[in-house]
Amino acid sequence: MKNIVIGIMGPGGNPTDLDLKNAYDIGHFCGQNQLTVLTGGAKVGVMHAALHGAKDAGGQTIAILPSIDKSHASDYADHVIVTGMGSARNNINILSSDIVIACGLQTGTLSEIALALKAGKPVILLTDNEKAQEFLKDLAPQQVLLAKNAAHITQIISKLIAHIR
Amino acid sequence: MKNIVIGIMGPGGNPTDLDLKNAYDIGHFCGQNQLTVLTGGAKVGVMHAALHGAKDAGGQTIAILPSIDKSHASDYADHVIVTGMGSARNNINILSSDIVIACGLQTGTLSEIALALKAGKPVILLTDNEKAQEFLKDLAPQQVLLAKNAAHITQIISKLIAHIR
Amino acid sequence: MKNIVIGIMGPGGNPTDLDLKNAYDIGHFCGQNQLTVLTGGAKVGVMHAALHGAKDAGGQTIAILPSIDKSHASDYADHVIVTGMGSARNNINILSSDIVIACGLQTGTLSEIALALKAGKPVILLTDNEKAQEFLKDLAPQQVLLAKNAAHITQIISKLIAHIR
Amino acid sequence: MKNIVIGIMGPGGNPTDLDLKNAYDIGHFCGQNQLTVLTGGAKVGVMHAALHGAKDAGGQTIAILPSIDKSHASDYADHVIVTGMGSARNNINILSSDIVIACGLQTGTLSEIALALKAGKPVILLTDNEKAQEFLKDLAPQQVLLAKNAAHITQIISKLIAHIR
Repeated sequence: MKNIVIGIMGPGGNPTDLDLKNAYDIGHFCGQNQLTVLTGGAKVGVMHAALHGAKDAGGQTIAILPSIDKSHASDYADHVIVTGMGSARNNINILSSDIVIACGLQTGTLSEIALALKAGKPVILLTDNEKAQEFLKDLAPQQVLLAKNAAHITQIISKLIAHIR
Repeated sequence: MKNIVIGIMGPGGNPTDLDLKNAYDIGHFCGQNQLTVLTGGAKVGVMHAALHGAKDAGGQTIAILPSIDKSHASDYADHVIVTGMGSARNNINILSSDIVIACGLQTGTLSEIALALKAGKPVILLTDNEKAQEFLKDLAPQQVLLAKNAAHITQIISKLIAHIR
Repeated sequence: MKNIVIGIMGPGGNPTDLDLKNAYDIGHFCGQNQLTVLTGGAKVGVMHAALHGAKDAGGQTIAILPSIDKSHASDYADHVIVTGMGSARNNINILSSDIVIACGLQTGTLSEIALALKAGKPVILLTDNEKAQEFLKDLAPQQVLLAKNAAHITQIISKLIAHIR
Repeated sequence: MKNIVIGIMGPGGNPTDLDLKNAYDIGHFCGQNQLTVLTGGAKVGVMHAALHGAKDAGGQTIAILPSIDKSHASDYADHVIVTGMGSARNNINILSSDIVIACGLQTGTLSEIALALKAGKPVILLTDNEKAQEFLKDLAPQQVLLAKNAAHITQIISKLIAHIR
């Protein structure tokens, strides 16, 4: 059976400390549970923190880079996919993930949430932005799952993968 | 000087009647004012209605198709770009537009709004979804412009292009 | 009926003088005959010369840019599509063209010839590289058409579009 | 240090028996030598055989799918990247590989060779098509390396990675 892939999306620039801690913790949980972690791959922000957590737990990690330069990838990426496509690569992040997690929220992350909903993927949203929660839950009530914190996310993932596996 | 390109985005499936009327009217305004209209190109929904309005006013129109089959394009498209890239083509819609208009709001359109904000483009939002208005205006206050109706959009476009031209 | 689109591909850097003259002449022929000219769009080499010829004859022109910066486009492009995808945009050039012309031959152009053959498009090859002629004609005998000069190309195009129109 | 990635390209449809055997053997060599094998990912032809060889030797494998359907991937792929971009994904295959091997030659593979040359990658060509050998060696003498058989390829790879590592 193919690995289940958890896409962990979130701000590359200006993440909050809590975003980074959450990303690390969720990545760590995935690594412990044989869930492959996929991110946008750069060595900054949520992408980097999620891969870091996964590797610290002995998990497998994939980076999907927007640029053409492999050296931009996080050191915690086992496998680096170089797209050279800028933000058009966001759709590849989504299509390659079985479950999408938004850990924090800026414009790039929002595009990934929207593309994931379009592609029929479940999206777990972890943000304290209440307007985002209300709008997105309303937009796709079945697909959008609101998480209170990183521990809550691990519960949601566990339930979702029980259906996939 | 290159043509100014107005990207008119909106639901392909299940648009409201008002979305379609708005798209037609905005397209018509662009056609009258030598503004090229660019859409996702299929012969359905807001994409089709906007191209229709532009052609009725003698304007120029471009369709950026997600599929590989040129016959999927709206008959109102002067020029058809065939990407074969699915939703990854949404980023091309945005990068090729000087101003992005969201006429109605579903997941595909939301991804285009987000990609436009990421790319630094102005986004005019025409929707009666108040949660969307509040969330998006809050996310990018400088770039997101809320329009009340199609007539209001034409005023906003006129002001924006005065800066571009 | 949609415009017939002629994709004119060829070296951006280091084209020969003959490549440039051929590209201009073929573009001019297309412009005279209501055939839209599509190229990779930059303001250099065969791309630029082909668009120049088409505009001098009053034709319509499209540029599909690899970069994210619209200002890189040739001034002879009526419509500029900004992909930000680097060489991955070569496939869009091909899918959007009804007939593909290779005017000169370097690595980028070779990728476009190959993608065109893969997509089932006719490819007209104008080069004095005999090894290229032999190899490509052998690879796809039905699709690859060898041209002796720009005038010969116009004859081949005329025959092909009689089938399309 | 990041894994070195060997991209093994070749016909998906109608490969020769020798192409398949070569692909398996090269994949096997890579697997034995801690070289990650990356292919176009479908469960047919050279892509499938190369991944098969790599897994039989305990190696790591990546599939970059053109379609949107993960189930199209070879069972020998450890990690599946779903692009939904058709042949535009060929450029991702190339950009993500440190060394590109063409094992057999049809139009899709030719596009990957050309894109690899454009991107400055070394390309090892294993084919009995003498016209292809002559043309491609002539086009990029420094980058194109002609291999006589699978054993010869393993020698060439060993030399190349001594420079990379």
